[in-house]
Amino acid sequence: MPWTCATILPDQLEAHLTFLANLDRSRAEMLRAKFAQQMPEVAVAIADEPYDKGAVRYMLTWQVPNDIKTAYPNLELIFSLGAGADQFVMSEVPDGVPVVRLIDDGLTSMMQEYVTMAVLALHRDLPGYLDNQRNQIWESVSVPPLPSDRRVGVMGLGELGRGALRALKPFGFSLSGWARSAHQIEGVETFHGEGALPRFLAQTDILVCLLPLTWATRSILNSNLFAQLPDGASLVHVGRGKQLDHHALTKALNNGKLRSAVIDVTAPEPLPEGHPFWVDPRIILTPHIACITRLETSLPGIFDNLKRHQVGQPLRGIVDKTLGY
Amino acid sequence: MPWTCATILPDQLEAHLTFLANLDRSRAEMLRAKFAQQMPEVAVAIADEPYDKGAVRYMLTWQVPNDIKTAYPNLELIFSLGAGADQFVMSEVPDGVPVVRLIDDGLTSMMQEYVTMAVLALHRDLPGYLDNQRNQIWESVSVPPLPSDRRVGVMGLGELGRGALRALKPFGFSLSGWARSAHQIEGVETFHGEGALPRFLAQTDILVCLLPLTWATRSILNSNLFAQLPDGASLVHVGRGKQLDHHALTKALNNGKLRSAVIDVTAPEPLPEGHPFWVDPRIILTPHIACITRLETSLPGIFDNLKRHQVGQPLRGIVDKTLGY
Repeated sequence: MPWTCATILPDQLEAHLTFLANLDRSRAEMLRAKFAQQMPEVAVAIADEPYDKGAVRYMLTWQVPNDIKTAYPNLELIFSLGAGADQFVMSEVPDGVPVVRLIDDGLTSMMQEYVTMAVLALHRDLPGYLDNQRNQIWESVSVPPLPSDRRVGVMGLGELGRGALRALKPFGFSLSGWARSAHQIEGVETFHGEGALPRFLAQTDILVCLLPLTWATRSILNSNLFAQLPDGASLVHVGRGKQLDHHALTKALNNGKLRSAVIDVTAPEPLPEGHPFWVDPRIILTPHIACITRLETSLPGIFDNLKRHQVGQPLRGIVDKTLGY
Repeated sequence: MPWTCATILPDQLEAHLTFLANLDRSRAEMLRAKFAQQMPEVAVAIADEPYDKGAVRYMLTWQVPNDIKTAYPNLELIFSLGAGADQFVMSEVPDGVPVVRLIDDGLTSMMQEYVTMAVLALHRDLPGYLDNQRNQIWESVSVPPLPSDRRVGVMGLGELGRGALRALKPFGFSLSGWARSAHQIEGVETFHGEGALPRFLAQTDILVCLLPLTWATRSILNSNLFAQLPDGASLVHVGRGKQLDHHALTKALNNGKLRSAVIDVTAPEPLPEGHPFWVDPRIILTPHIACITRLETSLPGIFDNLKRHQVGQPLRGIVDKTLGY
C-alpha cells in the first residue's frame, strides 16, 4: 500500500500539531492550502469552523482570544499577525507561551519603499511643490543640499528601522539611528538610551519614527522633542499613532521649527473629518498604508519559526513581554 | 628665485590655455577660483570681462555664441552647461570642435533621487492618496503588488537612464530599458531600436522617459505610444518638454489607459496658468527641478575631460553632433 495522507490518523494529527488560523476565512483557507503543500504534518484549524481548542499548539492571531488561558492548555507558541505585537494585552498571554512577531521580508520591503519615498519627498521639498501646483505657481522651491549634507535619523532600530536605513544608504544621505538599546550598523552613527536622545535629535534634519508603541514611546513626538531638532527639520511618522502629539506637530509647523511632514499613522484612526492635518499643505497624509501584511510574504517566516520551534532552535522575532516588542 | 605663478608669462598662458566661462559672474568667479587651485595652468576668462577671443581654447556655455565660427579660431573643445547638449544648434558649432556634456555625479544622483521618488510614488499610488487627503477620505487606495510584479521601464539609457535603473534596482522591481542603440545592463532586460519599442512598452507598468531631445523623440510620448502600454500604466516624464503631447496625456488619463503621472518638464515652460495639468489629481507636477546643475559637482568631470584632452585620451560624454546627444 502506498504511503498516503490517509496513513496519518486525523485525531493523532490534531492531538499533536494543530495550528489555529484566527483570521478571516479567505486568508485562513489560503494558509491551510499552503500548509498542506509545505508542512503537511501540521493541520490548520480555521477560527469559524468547529475545532478542538485543546489540540491547538500554535496560533496566528491579531488579538489574544478571551479564553486563551483556560481553553488552550496545549498552546506552545503564538504568532502575532503584525510586524509588532503591541496590539496584544500581554498580561492575557499565558505564562511560558512565547509570542513572535511576523518576520516578513515583504513587510520590510514595503516599509523600505514608503520610507524612501517619504524621505526623498521631504529632501526634494515635494510638499512645497504640491502646494505650488495647487496655486499654479511654476517656481523652484529650494535647491536640495548634497545628500551627504542631509542628515536622516531613524528612531527605532528593529527589523523595519534597520531595513529603512539599508534602503536610504545608496542615496548617500548622512545616516544615524537611535534606539533604547545599543546597536552597531555599518555606515550609520548610532545613539542609544534617553541620555543620547538630545545629541541624536540635534543632528537630524529628517526624522523617521519607527519605534514600537510602549509606555515610554507614547507621545514621544511632542513639543519638547521637536524643539531639540534643527530649525526647518522634517518628520516621517510610520511608527504608531499614539506616539505623535498632533497639536505639537501643528504648532511646530506653524512656528517654523518643522518644515514639513509625511504622516501615515494617527490616533484615532481614521483621522476625523475636519482635523487640521487633512488641509495642512506642509503635511502629506496617508491612511496607515506604509506597511500592509500580505500573507504570501509572511508565510516563509512562519514556517521557519515552526521548524525552529520543533527542533528547539531559537525563534526569530520573539517578543519581550515586559517590553511589549 | 622660487618658482611662482609670475614665472608663467601671462600672454603665453592666454595664447595657449584660456578657458571661457560663459556664465553668470558669481558662478564664473567660483570656477576661476577652483581652476586657480586645481589647474593653475589654465586661465579662466569671464564672459562679461574683456578677454582675447582668439586665445580661447575651451568654452563652457549653455548656448553657442553667435560669433563662434569667426571670432574663436583656436577653440578646441566646448563644454555644454547641461547633462545634454540639445539646447545647442549643432550647425552653428565649428567643424572639428567636439562638444561634451557635463559628466556630473551630482546630476546623476539628483536624477536618481527624483526618479526613485516618482516611481515609488506611482507604485504606492501617492496621487490617489493626495486626492483622498484633499477630500478628507481615510481609505486604502490599493494594495501594491510585490515589487517583482511591478515592471518599470526606462526609455533612454545614457548616464541618467542607467543611473535611474541602478537606484531602482535594490527595491526589487522588474526592470527594463529601451534606447536607440543596444545596451547591456546587468539585471535589466534591454530593448533597442524602433522595432523593439512595442515589445518594450507592452511589458512596462511604470514608464520613465529620460530620452534626449532629437527630431526622432519630439512628441514621442503620444497617443500611439500610450496605447501600447498595459491598461492602468503610469508615466514619469523627466526627459524634455517637447517629447510629451499634453493633449494625449490628458486623454489617456481620462480614458483609463494611464492611471497617473509625475511630470517635471513641459513645453512651454513655465506651464501657463489654467493649463489642465495644474488641477489634474492624477498628475504630480514639478517645475523642471528633477536635475539642477550645481557647479560644485560638475567641476571634477570638467577637469577630468580637460586632462584627457591635453594628453589625447578619449573624452567622456562626447556629443554626436548629427544625433544631437
